[in-house]
Amino acid sequence: MLGVTVNRSDERRSLEMKEVEIPRPAAGELLIQVHAAAVNRTDIVNRQGKAGYMTHPILGVEVAGTVAEASGDTGFKAGDRVMGLVNGGGYAEYAVMPADRAMKIPESFTFAEAAAIPEVFLTAYQTLFWIGKLRENESVLIHAGASGVGTAAIQLAKKLRNAKVIVTAGSRQKLDFCQKLGADVLINYKEQNFDEEVLKATEGQGADVILDFVGADYWTRNLNSIKKGGRWVLIGILGGSTVEKVDLFPLMSKMIEVTGTLLTPRDDDYKARLTRDFYQAVLPYFEKREILPVVDTSFPLEKAEEAHEHMLGNRNIGKIILDVKTR
Amino acid sequence: MLGVTVNRSDERRSLEMKEVEIPRPAAGELLIQVHAAAVNRTDIVNRQGKAGYMTHPILGVEVAGTVAEASGDTGFKAGDRVMGLVNGGGYAEYAVMPADRAMKIPESFTFAEAAAIPEVFLTAYQTLFWIGKLRENESVLIHAGASGVGTAAIQLAKKLRNAKVIVTAGSRQKLDFCQKLGADVLINYKEQNFDEEVLKATEGQGADVILDFVGADYWTRNLNSIKKGGRWVLIGILGGSTVEKVDLFPLMSKMIEVTGTLLTPRDDDYKARLTRDFYQAVLPYFEKREILPVVDTSFPLEKAEEAHEHMLGNRNIGKIILDVKTR
Repeated sequence: MLGVTVNRSDERRSLEMKEVEIPRPAAGELLIQVHAAAVNRTDIVNRQGKAGYMTHPILGVEVAGTVAEASGDTGFKAGDRVMGLVNGGGYAEYAVMPADRAMKIPESFTFAEAAAIPEVFLTAYQTLFWIGKLRENESVLIHAGASGVGTAAIQLAKKLRNAKVIVTAGSRQKLDFCQKLGADVLINYKEQNFDEEVLKATEGQGADVILDFVGADYWTRNLNSIKKGGRWVLIGILGGSTVEKVDLFPLMSKMIEVTGTLLTPRDDDYKARLTRDFYQAVLPYFEKREILPVVDTSFPLEKAEEAHEHMLGNRNIGKIILDVKTR
Repeated sequence: MLGVTVNRSDERRSLEMKEVEIPRPAAGELLIQVHAAAVNRTDIVNRQGKAGYMTHPILGVEVAGTVAEASGDTGFKAGDRVMGLVNGGGYAEYAVMPADRAMKIPESFTFAEAAAIPEVFLTAYQTLFWIGKLRENESVLIHAGASGVGTAAIQLAKKLRNAKVIVTAGSRQKLDFCQKLGADVLINYKEQNFDEEVLKATEGQGADVILDFVGADYWTRNLNSIKKGGRWVLIGILGGSTVEKVDLFPLMSKMIEVTGTLLTPRDDDYKARLTRDFYQAVLPYFEKREILPVVDTSFPLEKAEEAHEHMLGNRNIGKIILDVKTR
């Protein structure tokens, strides 16, 4: 089969399409014929060799496709349309997936839509509810509202908790899109001080939960934007990793919980439990198409390099998909 | 009655004993004749005018005494021996306390022992279990093991969760005392690198929970000492408030939860719930004297100034008590 690997001897670490062996599913795993894989920032980090936890030679952590083989008692059969997280190996014609984190694809969804679901929706679900403990009618500040996780989080926060959803993004077009997904308060971070706007929108209280993809650049303003007793979930460092000066006292006096998290390095059992909890809660909304994945662009698998460039250009709204043609 | 107030026009902010009116309990409150009050760092912060949340003119956040008057349906009657947190006003002959956070004093306990319980045991209970979510057989790093909260936390972690208890302190004498209370691993922070010792004691994994009273000075070493998925509870900044150059990436890759907390500024309902949960869990151990408060020294109320100096000298093991004589 064909799969996309990284040329690690090349300084650019260019992507290469290679002929490799079809993987074999162990007991409890599915072999999936991949119809679509999605691009994630973790793939780019992995490509650059910066994340020690990814060891699979083929990139890609999520796919949608059909079951080619179900090994052991999995609850799935050949031909089932499934989507879910894989432990690497997604940018390929076939991939293996532990069956306990495979989700049946809702009937009305294309493979491209389905591939756009697992990573961002599971991350949004994990950070909003498991870690952020967002409760009914609370407020949440979602940075990068038009990103993959952002678009998923807006919908989940709104539909599942009726939250006041405050988003930041860098253009009118992105903010309009967030509004269509249900965002209540739109902040253009290039033109406004987001902390002032959050305080205005919350009667001076601040947001109960913050989903922070930005890190260092936003540290102080996030601290200003969070409510007493708030939960601040750190899931990205697009704005740098190093904060020059951190004052610990406000963390104490505001009684704030800051949690760093990543989804990819979590263990299999965690991913299985998260998938089950998410699928049960969100499937009814998927079936009524009241919550939808957002696909920005699809590239053919052999154009993975261009797909990465598109992500780095930061112009996408929603997910970037790799279409895998059946040979 | 007599109460200890702060002379705010004096640069030293000296303590003054003054004749003031006996407070009146509102419905649901107890008027307590105070027999013992305890000294806390929060009193010193308040005295210095640094904590905006303390507005009571009389210092002191915890007392033990007898009920002089129970207003409304409180479940207590005059003469009952009680201990608990007060919203200021503890350094005095009488104080009022919401009845839903009053605890009956176990029979074998003196008033001095009882006054040594509420603040440190509730803080230790809150941080270990409510915030730190310490589970059976996990490991916990307790800094300042010989402090009030430290001595309470060692006993609670050991008796209630059979935890591996790792403590730091600055003298052999303090470490020996911690060992008597149940600590398993003793680290002299003046002679050893505590992070290296924690890793040695946990097979390179790090501690599941850290109780951090130190803040800035220990930031990097705490980060080294914590396990993946660990909970780091920030409850003091004795080692400074400002950390230079904080790298956020390890918080994400180690998936760490950092929670800042204080007990005094929490609302009445929180304190009532915490008190109930604590009392139910720990009373059986108090009654068998298997868990005990640790009293360092008692000063008469009129020597509150000396009691504060004793605390600032950092030589105490356990709590510093103010004895209140009945006139």
